[in-house]
Amino acid sequence: MQDEVMANIEDAEQREEIAELLTYDEHSAGGLMAKELVRVNVDGSMRDCVKELRAHADEIDNVYVIYVVDQHDRLMGTIPLKRLLTTSLFQPVKDVYEPDFISVKADEEAEVAAKLMEKYDLVVLPVLDARGRLLGRITIDDVVDVIREEETEDVQKMAGMEALEDSYMSSTWLEIVKKRVGWLIILFIGESFTATAMSFFEDQIAKAVVLALFVPLIISSGGNTGSQASTLIIRALALGDVTIREWWSVVKREFSVGLILGTVLGIIGFLRVAVWSQFVDVYGEHWFEVGLAVGISLLGVVLWGNLIGSLFPLILKRFGRDPAVSSAPFVATVVDVTGLLIYFGIASVLLAGIML
Amino acid sequence: MQDEVMANIEDAEQREEIAELLTYDEHSAGGLMAKELVRVNVDGSMRDCVKELRAHADEIDNVYVIYVVDQHDRLMGTIPLKRLLTTSLFQPVKDVYEPDFISVKADEEAEVAAKLMEKYDLVVLPVLDARGRLLGRITIDDVVDVIREEETEDVQKMAGMEALEDSYMSSTWLEIVKKRVGWLIILFIGESFTATAMSFFEDQIAKAVVLALFVPLIISSGGNTGSQASTLIIRALALGDVTIREWWSVVKREFSVGLILGTVLGIIGFLRVAVWSQFVDVYGEHWFEVGLAVGISLLGVVLWGNLIGSLFPLILKRFGRDPAVSSAPFVATVVDVTGLLIYFGIASVLLAGIML
Repeated sequence: MQDEVMANIEDAEQREEIAELLTYDEHSAGGLMAKELVRVNVDGSMRDCVKELRAHADEIDNVYVIYVVDQHDRLMGTIPLKRLLTTSLFQPVKDVYEPDFISVKADEEAEVAAKLMEKYDLVVLPVLDARGRLLGRITIDDVVDVIREEETEDVQKMAGMEALEDSYMSSTWLEIVKKRVGWLIILFIGESFTATAMSFFEDQIAKAVVLALFVPLIISSGGNTGSQASTLIIRALALGDVTIREWWSVVKREFSVGLILGTVLGIIGFLRVAVWSQFVDVYGEHWFEVGLAVGISLLGVVLWGNLIGSLFPLILKRFGRDPAVSSAPFVATVVDVTGLLIYFGIASVLLAGIML
Repeated sequence: MQDEVMANIEDAEQREEIAELLTYDEHSAGGLMAKELVRVNVDGSMRDCVKELRAHADEIDNVYVIYVVDQHDRLMGTIPLKRLLTTSLFQPVKDVYEPDFISVKADEEAEVAAKLMEKYDLVVLPVLDARGRLLGRITIDDVVDVIREEETEDVQKMAGMEALEDSYMSSTWLEIVKKRVGWLIILFIGESFTATAMSFFEDQIAKAVVLALFVPLIISSGGNTGSQASTLIIRALALGDVTIREWWSVVKREFSVGLILGTVLGIIGFLRVAVWSQFVDVYGEHWFEVGLAVGISLLGVVLWGNLIGSLFPLILKRFGRDPAVSSAPFVATVVDVTGLLIYFGIASVLLAGIML
């Protein structure tokens, strides 16, 4: 297939160039670069720059700088295009060029190039080989595509699936199944421990069926809080807004946040039971104790979910893993299992001798 | 505060310019633009271009094009910088400039400018007022920041919260609470219908406590599948990969995907019950029927969750709302409530006369 395409490219020089570019991984800086650029020898004059520029002006879409190289083609520095118009043409290149430049090696990840260009507000970035020789240049419009792809991959991972290789519409449904089923099975196996956890409390449920009614409400509140927290931290890590060194201030902050959120939901949960029981006799005579068990459990589960959700991404990052893997569904699963133990534990204590 | 800052800026001209930029909303194209650019009258010569460029070369970081305006300062076209070096200085501007250009109005949203620059691979975009007069230019490095912000907002909304205004670390914990608590309460109220739904089946749970044990497992599987689906579609809509016109092909595709995913999880769910019951007597003599109820419910809930998750973002988009609001937690909440009805409905039929 690749050979066919190549055979159809008539220009031998172009064919050779494309073949060379194909040797770089498409996710590397080399795979992202274009080879067309204007270069001038450091021993030349500004007149050589203009000559070189005129010779290549048509084939290069956007010229931003002229690259200055030595006799071994190693990059020495750059000349911004506007300098050509503000400098005498008789000046030697070596007196004009700016020796400070930011570059990237061809075998670095495309994302490294993107991060550099973002950080230094670059429009174009030279790509070098291991010996510092100038191979090509990456322009910012290609980087924008890299950023979009990278963000899409992160979002998909954060939803508890593998990142698609192609766009949604150009993926077959079988490819989509493949990217989704693995994590669904892992989450299912994790979540099946909820059945185990609940079976420890089968006797309590048999005595007070009303306890079972609040299971989805309580564990999902912990899961929702945990999803928010993990997403905030994953995103902050990706943007470089939080580093793992700051884990303790994240914990302190999310403890306070979780405490407030848990208190709010706990109070609403208690009121839900209290108000309902005035109209419907679903919670029986011990509605106050049931409401208290629900409310306190909500506080505990929400606080716990918030801490788990904010710590998991930091722990994954600490061990060199992708924080996005601690996706909302993953955090929710962990919080579901442990949340049940918190809920039935608190209920067992509060309702002992009354309903249990 | 703003006045204080302004008073400290000594240069009167600079002060005036900043004051003018402050009149634009920071999320508009005008708020994103810089006013420094090189402009030349359409009646001038290329020599005027060079003169103008030399006069402003120091104050403008990156010159990419020279803007050609008429006597009313309306933008007529552009001259790429390299043309200055490949054209005789005596040529009139009107013979050289390119009259086709893409521009944005100052009061358009910053995201509109970002989308245009992405679509046409632009490095710089002129900003015009309502009458077509040249006000400034937006450079791509500012757009990269807009893209990052926009993505962060989307990700946060997709996690079931409002988008933070500042970065995570520069937000106070009270601001974070405010952005999170609203959606948590909405989700809590929605999720509290799970207690109502389960109370319809209180008698069945009392007779067969074992049914309650699988509630978290079944509803969370539906929620996880729905989260994946909604995230895929929200993202595909944001990237323009899917349009609402294609809703029917999305439904068909996600029906197939949901069927496969549901069958896989259904089989694993049945096996979980079947294998466990050989070792532990937790499911009693009717383990086969219990396993069947769990397996078939999983198929139904996963298929349902997948359809809900993929359709909600399309429906929101159709009615002009932000699809990201149909966040994973929102979809999970809807699927939890309806999933319980599916589960207990199926269990009631399958176990009627046996356990119930």
